[in-house]
Amino acid sequence: MDIAARVHNHNWKIDPIVRSLIDTDFYKLLMCQSIYRNKPETSVAFSLINRTKSVRLADLIDEGELREQLDHVRSLSLSRGESTWLRGNMFYGKRQMFRPDFMEWFEGLRLPAYHLEKRDGQYELTFEGQWPEVMLWEIPALAVLMELRSRAVLKGMGKFELQVLYARATTRLWEKIQRLRQLERLKIADFGTRRRHGFLWQDWCVQAMQEGLGDKFTGTSNCKIAMRRDIEAIGTNAHELPMVYAALAQDDAELAEAPYRVLADWHEEHDGNLRIILPDTYGTEGFLKRAPDWLASWTGIRIDSGDPGQAAEAAIRWWQERGEDPRRKLVIFSDGLDVEKIEELYHQFLGRVKVSFGWGTNLTNDFRGLVPNDALAPFSLVCKAVSADGRPTVKLSDNPSKAMGPADEIARYKRVFGVGDQVASEVLV
Amino acid sequence: MDIAARVHNHNWKIDPIVRSLIDTDFYKLLMCQSIYRNKPETSVAFSLINRTKSVRLADLIDEGELREQLDHVRSLSLSRGESTWLRGNMFYGKRQMFRPDFMEWFEGLRLPAYHLEKRDGQYELTFEGQWPEVMLWEIPALAVLMELRSRAVLKGMGKFELQVLYARATTRLWEKIQRLRQLERLKIADFGTRRRHGFLWQDWCVQAMQEGLGDKFTGTSNCKIAMRRDIEAIGTNAHELPMVYAALAQDDAELAEAPYRVLADWHEEHDGNLRIILPDTYGTEGFLKRAPDWLASWTGIRIDSGDPGQAAEAAIRWWQERGEDPRRKLVIFSDGLDVEKIEELYHQFLGRVKVSFGWGTNLTNDFRGLVPNDALAPFSLVCKAVSADGRPTVKLSDNPSKAMGPADEIARYKRVFGVGDQVASEVLV
Repeated sequence: MDIAARVHNHNWKIDPIVRSLIDTDFYKLLMCQSIYRNKPETSVAFSLINRTKSVRLADLIDEGELREQLDHVRSLSLSRGESTWLRGNMFYGKRQMFRPDFMEWFEGLRLPAYHLEKRDGQYELTFEGQWPEVMLWEIPALAVLMELRSRAVLKGMGKFELQVLYARATTRLWEKIQRLRQLERLKIADFGTRRRHGFLWQDWCVQAMQEGLGDKFTGTSNCKIAMRRDIEAIGTNAHELPMVYAALAQDDAELAEAPYRVLADWHEEHDGNLRIILPDTYGTEGFLKRAPDWLASWTGIRIDSGDPGQAAEAAIRWWQERGEDPRRKLVIFSDGLDVEKIEELYHQFLGRVKVSFGWGTNLTNDFRGLVPNDALAPFSLVCKAVSADGRPTVKLSDNPSKAMGPADEIARYKRVFGVGDQVASEVLV
Repeated sequence: MDIAARVHNHNWKIDPIVRSLIDTDFYKLLMCQSIYRNKPETSVAFSLINRTKSVRLADLIDEGELREQLDHVRSLSLSRGESTWLRGNMFYGKRQMFRPDFMEWFEGLRLPAYHLEKRDGQYELTFEGQWPEVMLWEIPALAVLMELRSRAVLKGMGKFELQVLYARATTRLWEKIQRLRQLERLKIADFGTRRRHGFLWQDWCVQAMQEGLGDKFTGTSNCKIAMRRDIEAIGTNAHELPMVYAALAQDDAELAEAPYRVLADWHEEHDGNLRIILPDTYGTEGFLKRAPDWLASWTGIRIDSGDPGQAAEAAIRWWQERGEDPRRKLVIFSDGLDVEKIEELYHQFLGRVKVSFGWGTNLTNDFRGLVPNDALAPFSLVCKAVSADGRPTVKLSDNPSKAMGPADEIARYKRVFGVGDQVASEVLV
């Protein structure tokens, strides 16, 4: 592992954090293609939001360095090998997942301008423009900020202190993997790109999962790493689709329909394991209650907020009510996982549904307790669509701590989607 | 650290363990020069002795691989850069430590033949010929066997298991160094070549000591690493000198004089920090009692067997009896050290003498408890002069467990040197 040496070198020359346009989550590309077809002209704004105010990013990270890294991302374009891989690779058992017209557009793409300001110890970082372009900023923006924060903390450490830091993190991850391999029918993927410690570390984590878990490790959400390590790229869709569709709704009736409109567009484009419902944007309970019948035939569901066990139980009941056999359905857990939670959910749902895990921050960025003041502890940084064609977006989710949007709009959405009281839980990552 | 990757590769291509004639202890070269001047024609036999019979080296290590490695050592000769370094470098504050006639001889040297047989699960490995040549086999022979044993144990491990193994060993060493740096006036050197886990690991340990201990780290006994890392090469003399001189003695009177004859030759050649008494070959107590007065003026003493605290107290009393100020004398501890022992001796002798430590096996080969069956636990392998001009050598030391030689000769030596009962202690390394 030469990571420590590399990190040691970060501080005396520029070392680009994001070096490829496909160093991003696979679902961003799937969604981008869908948006490119269905909503290419929509204007959106994406904005960085640090939900952990105590981590004062603007005090930690030099603005000049941040600009250099973001400018570097803007200089990237798809390489020939990357384009070949996207065009020729089999994703979810399907060839030519990406249509020629989309690929041509993507090959010509450079990421649009960014707007950066400091306020109250935080960076205000926003991206505005056409949805298909702007949305591709999300992952590189997060990766750049996460890794600059890591570098800022590690800057004062000697080469051997760094080696020992990575030795400890390595040992910790390996011990987690040793525990997980006890779970005989485990299926788990890396979802850790956005909050990773750094690219090299994520790449190492993926290799450790490959060696330690074998077939239990189903792939990575990161396209660059999937290509590099010749493994499956994993992912389907995310909250930005219902959030933007909802913001574009002309009235309450259209708003209530927006989440299903998203999935109807998706249904038309994808089948099999790509038909995964993400039900929590405006409350899982109401979403399932009002869902059209055709949705019950989808392959599975992804649980990304609230109490995951309760949400999965609700999904099981819903499938049963619609005459579906839950044992043939896939439940993907992807919110705030670590080994204990994975073990608990695995045992709770083993044999009742097909279970899969998307493991994020605690896979690719668990440096808790390894440096003074716990300065590498995970924190909750997101980059979200905040407006579409000039209207604010809203997210409710199953955890009010994750809600976002203007207060009056939140109230309106709660009314339209029939969301009552929710249980708040702390958002760590 | 790419050690894990390297170890992973050991098993599919030949990877020479010893790659340089100066990948050896500095004191071997100092002694070699002395022997080359004073006893060049003496015939000696050196032999490998594994004092830990439970480690069955011949079962672990393939004979073909061992021969390949030993043959490779025989193919080595001094490189131009190595010769330049030996001729030009300053050792112990002195330039041209190595005389031109010795350097010319050394530049032309290839190591002599070896004789290898298997017996009772062990290798019988012997070297015969002229003393200055044969004696240079000691360190490479030990390094080859130690590292082949490490490789044999690691052979079945995956790349990530290896990474985690080294991560744990790294963390352990760093924690030791963190403890040692608390000792404000510590002086410590690496003496771990002969029983190292492997060359790369020793080189890493030395760099860790450099970064973690700064000035407290005084250097390494390994010439290649001293050259590579631009630090001090450390060492003076060893038991082989009195052992061979004693074996060559014609009668008991000459035998009793032999240890002092060695030091008289050394006195003529060296001064300052190279005048270090090694008193235990035939019992420290008697050695000091019968020592000539001029020896009390020497710079210090090295404690290499028995109870180190007691031996150092005896040395202090001896200096005081001879009118010397112990506070100006150097005591070097070099037997079976680990952090606890170093701390204990440091506090016991701080301010009473100048204290220095030569840290060996537990610096460069502490993998205890890190693999199943503790298969990397340290063990006691030595390579010693067993005869000189056809007569057997004898070593008594201050620990009867370290005694060697034919029983009748041991009895004679005990009589001549007035060695009574000794306390046995387990020899771990």
